[in-house]
Amino acid sequence: MAKESKPSKSTANGPKESLVELGNELATQIEDGKNPTIELSVRSLSNVVYNEKTQKLGIGDKTSERQFFNVSHAKKFLQTIEVAAISKSLLDIDKHASLRDVFYMAKRTIPGTKTNVVDEQNESDKAIEDLELVSGFTREQLNINANKMGSVAGNVVVEDAGDTIDWSKLGSGGWSIPSNVENIVFRKVSAKYIIYMEKAAVWERLHEDKFWMKQNCIIMCSQGQSTRGVRRLLQRLASEYKLPIYVLTDNDPWGIYIYSVLKYGSISLAHMSDELAIRDVRYLGVTCDDVKKYKLERHYIKLTEQDSSRLKQMAEYDWFKDHKDWQKQFKAMKEAGAKVEIQSLSSRGITFISETYLPEKIKNQEFID
Amino acid sequence: MAKESKPSKSTANGPKESLVELGNELATQIEDGKNPTIELSVRSLSNVVYNEKTQKLGIGDKTSERQFFNVSHAKKFLQTIEVAAISKSLLDIDKHASLRDVFYMAKRTIPGTKTNVVDEQNESDKAIEDLELVSGFTREQLNINANKMGSVAGNVVVEDAGDTIDWSKLGSGGWSIPSNVENIVFRKVSAKYIIYMEKAAVWERLHEDKFWMKQNCIIMCSQGQSTRGVRRLLQRLASEYKLPIYVLTDNDPWGIYIYSVLKYGSISLAHMSDELAIRDVRYLGVTCDDVKKYKLERHYIKLTEQDSSRLKQMAEYDWFKDHKDWQKQFKAMKEAGAKVEIQSLSSRGITFISETYLPEKIKNQEFID
Repeated sequence: MAKESKPSKSTANGPKESLVELGNELATQIEDGKNPTIELSVRSLSNVVYNEKTQKLGIGDKTSERQFFNVSHAKKFLQTIEVAAISKSLLDIDKHASLRDVFYMAKRTIPGTKTNVVDEQNESDKAIEDLELVSGFTREQLNINANKMGSVAGNVVVEDAGDTIDWSKLGSGGWSIPSNVENIVFRKVSAKYIIYMEKAAVWERLHEDKFWMKQNCIIMCSQGQSTRGVRRLLQRLASEYKLPIYVLTDNDPWGIYIYSVLKYGSISLAHMSDELAIRDVRYLGVTCDDVKKYKLERHYIKLTEQDSSRLKQMAEYDWFKDHKDWQKQFKAMKEAGAKVEIQSLSSRGITFISETYLPEKIKNQEFID
Repeated sequence: MAKESKPSKSTANGPKESLVELGNELATQIEDGKNPTIELSVRSLSNVVYNEKTQKLGIGDKTSERQFFNVSHAKKFLQTIEVAAISKSLLDIDKHASLRDVFYMAKRTIPGTKTNVVDEQNESDKAIEDLELVSGFTREQLNINANKMGSVAGNVVVEDAGDTIDWSKLGSGGWSIPSNVENIVFRKVSAKYIIYMEKAAVWERLHEDKFWMKQNCIIMCSQGQSTRGVRRLLQRLASEYKLPIYVLTDNDPWGIYIYSVLKYGSISLAHMSDELAIRDVRYLGVTCDDVKKYKLERHYIKLTEQDSSRLKQMAEYDWFKDHKDWQKQFKAMKEAGAKVEIQSLSSRGITFISETYLPEKIKNQEFID
């Protein structure tokens, strides 16, 4: 939402209009003899807040100004304007660039100096995140793509880049999820829910067993922490088609954090929670109760020091600290001093996960919310 | 090829027959009161040889026996038989398992003891590699899958798992390459060559620019070092359709090694070179000459110590040490003390790579073989 006083977020309709508006504003400031200034929300940890009502991480009220005639601001100011110009040029020719491309496009020497606009990618990356805040559009909408990763299959037909793609007819491979899913048009979505899993091998397991066909669902994976493309695709299906999302991960702090990021958002992308965090995400991964029920204790893997400290950290997060079911899980994992992988279910038979474990858990609604 | 004396590789037609043959052989040995014994080639570095004629890494003549009644062999013997049994059970029900699944399936306590068949995944992984040698079939043919990774687009139609998939009609995502490509049937291959790249972001660049359409080629990527699924897919297209493969990577030792593995095979999978190494692979990645021609010096990134030692190591490989063109590249990289990324071409414009750089290099046949 735009503020009433001095708009820090654009009110323009499209990303291009928003960049043009930003440019015009600055041009006016220059013509008026003012110090060119951008106002934007502070993105440091101190301004990341958990909103209990929306159940999302978000950015607080603190804003800061970035001025051209200010020695400590000048370079960042320039970097933000530079990536805005690059984004505008991409939108003009309807092309997309990766974060690395944008870095190289911005990495030029300022005429008459020996200074580069950017020297390291983290500078252009940060400038792009600033631009997301200033423009109110995601970097994907600004034609800057994140990593490409992940596969999907299910009863869905989409249109993308001029092609009609049926996710149910793509052999054993599935559709390769693009890094940018903003322009996908859903033509038919008959699936009832989505299972998102962290491991491609588990995806291949469910796919070979025709799980999505039998259960009329969508199966989706990336590898480890989900990419932005995957998160946006999940978010779009959840918001546009009200599909619940079940997250299937290992029983370890990292698996639970994958669920956490999908549901509540992440600290580093708190300013994008509206576009990325998904309320209707439920944890379907291996729980400490499953370990007992399915006799997986013999596949316990001892928690490392890193695991334990991550577990402790997570138990203290605002959105977990009063959550009984999660606290029970954290406590049980701590007491066991061990984690369990999803693939340990294969010890009960290769199709056990798709023929017994998942159908049982879904039928009995054994989720953690 | 089976040896004439005592077959160490099965001569059976299919993977299942080969496993049955192995079982029968061992059963006969037991019935005859002999010590059950498997003979297999030694896979240690000392037995990995570069074959100048085939230009592939391979396994030498050294073989070793693995006996059940031998304290130092017994466990490995058992592990090999265990994964053979798991593979047979997978083939019986026409299901595939990941390496991690096989580990959990093999991880059981030997009745009457406190000993597990396997305790760590590297034990079952090694047993699977042994089984590849003994059976003469790849683990994919034994229904054991490696990692799933990568995307492909181009003028190709395949049949896979009952679906017909047109790689030219899959939107911006492309087809997600399965971990196991053995059962894919090619229905139409009109493309003239393949560009394989290490980076998904470069793949998205070429795909958005319709490079494969304009050039009538196939574009394929994984992420970093290519997976076995990708290598086998490249290998099948190269051998079944005589398509040359151009490898597009960064100008650094790791990029060049990606080319090297595709062309000559890898040390760890030397026993699979026949199935994986591809003669007609050419390096299309950024060369030291390109750096000069396209003025990329300003994007030099200093070689790390690790880079430099890898560079030195590689220059001494059997297949590189007398290779003039490569020695020239290694020398130039060492002298510059720097590497260059493929995306630095974006500094010349976002479509420079697909509209100028690649078409020029391909037209002028500027490859390194």
